[in-house]
Amino acid sequence: MKLTVAYDGTNYHGWQIQPEGDTIEEELNKNLSKLLKEEIHVLGASRTDAGVHALGNVAVFDTSHRMPIEKIAFAVNTYLPWDIRVQSSVEVPPDFHPRFCRLRKTYRYQIWNRPIPNPLVSRYATFYYYDLDERKMAEAAECLVGRHDFSSFCTAKPERPNHVRTLEKVSVKREGDMITLELTGDGFLYNMVRIIAGTLLWVGGGKIPPGEMRAILEAKDRSLAGDTARPEGLTLVEIEYL
Amino acid sequence: MKLTVAYDGTNYHGWQIQPEGDTIEEELNKNLSKLLKEEIHVLGASRTDAGVHALGNVAVFDTSHRMPIEKIAFAVNTYLPWDIRVQSSVEVPPDFHPRFCRLRKTYRYQIWNRPIPNPLVSRYATFYYYDLDERKMAEAAECLVGRHDFSSFCTAKPERPNHVRTLEKVSVKREGDMITLELTGDGFLYNMVRIIAGTLLWVGGGKIPPGEMRAILEAKDRSLAGDTARPEGLTLVEIEYL
Repeated sequence: MKLTVAYDGTNYHGWQIQPEGDTIEEELNKNLSKLLKEEIHVLGASRTDAGVHALGNVAVFDTSHRMPIEKIAFAVNTYLPWDIRVQSSVEVPPDFHPRFCRLRKTYRYQIWNRPIPNPLVSRYATFYYYDLDERKMAEAAECLVGRHDFSSFCTAKPERPNHVRTLEKVSVKREGDMITLELTGDGFLYNMVRIIAGTLLWVGGGKIPPGEMRAILEAKDRSLAGDTARPEGLTLVEIEYL
Repeated sequence: MKLTVAYDGTNYHGWQIQPEGDTIEEELNKNLSKLLKEEIHVLGASRTDAGVHALGNVAVFDTSHRMPIEKIAFAVNTYLPWDIRVQSSVEVPPDFHPRFCRLRKTYRYQIWNRPIPNPLVSRYATFYYYDLDERKMAEAAECLVGRHDFSSFCTAKPERPNHVRTLEKVSVKREGDMITLELTGDGFLYNMVRIIAGTLLWVGGGKIPPGEMRAILEAKDRSLAGDTARPEGLTLVEIEYL
């Protein structure tokens, strides 16, 4: 069974079950178990961090319950808290693995760029006081497209030493006071989108010129890139299986 | 002193001070008093209901404190909870009254029209399960433009017997699953936007034809119009003083 899951991550300690604090995985396990009357353990496609949102994360699980598959989404939503909503439930082959199948992920990072925050967007966009030049940010982001070693834009984890990923598309757009980055690729390293966003904040604010982005990428050195930008701006938009 | 105030109304019992529950007015009074070290009582332009949001409500008050006026917005924001943010503070003449001056208000009502809610919009849009036809809604809304007695679209209050208002503009637009109503006029009756929205939900869902809207308006009878739509979809966007 494959669920597409949307959530407002504000009140959660991320996806993955933790000793302390509510997590999305825990809420899904608990409420699916209640609904299906057997112990359910979901396997998530993307273990989003605390405070990060999703429109389309994916969770997979097995059940012997005979509820019609497409009804599970509607039924489990009546148990879940308002800030988690399963968008669809579909059958997948038993060997389907949400992380190891070929896939394409899209992330969005939103920045509210005005001297005063807007409470109606502040759960889903990072506030940035100083003027940002989104054209410079777009110019800098362009060099990231393609197959690269993204070591400069990742918090290293010893168990995942391979830092080569393919970024298919990247865009930076402004609509009024909101700047939106969108990135699509075959996989993302730990904190990759937030470190890219943090580095683009340097570019947009004039701390480094757009051309410097390529040098940072090529150096494969995390210490040269910007800070890990705050989690609330990040949303996992979609995971497509190819 | 005139403040423009934005807030996420989800966690408040509306604007106006109540015996029970937090209100926007109370938070402003409390935190302005702390900042300016004297007792402040704001006078609000629009006493929004529980759960209703604002991008640009207006509050007026007097102070003898000599802090530079434009700094008050930034300073009081450091005291206020995250879901209330003063957007600007400017001087106004001592006789300026935020409700009795000539003004133009704009409200927005958002409807998330899909069989499954989206947690990333559900604080700011009303969820509606059944398919809505936004073209029919736009057609129905058109007859409301102009100077009319809006008794059919108001929860009557004995102290405000005059129900004639001028609606300058109304629009209904869909972007994907989100339908947005926008209304601009010289004043709005109690619950007016929410009752108009509730009646347009009837039209969009096919319960009544678009042409019926005019008959409901002309009847001046609240019992003929739709339900008062839920508060979370409503945002007071702007108040312009003319």
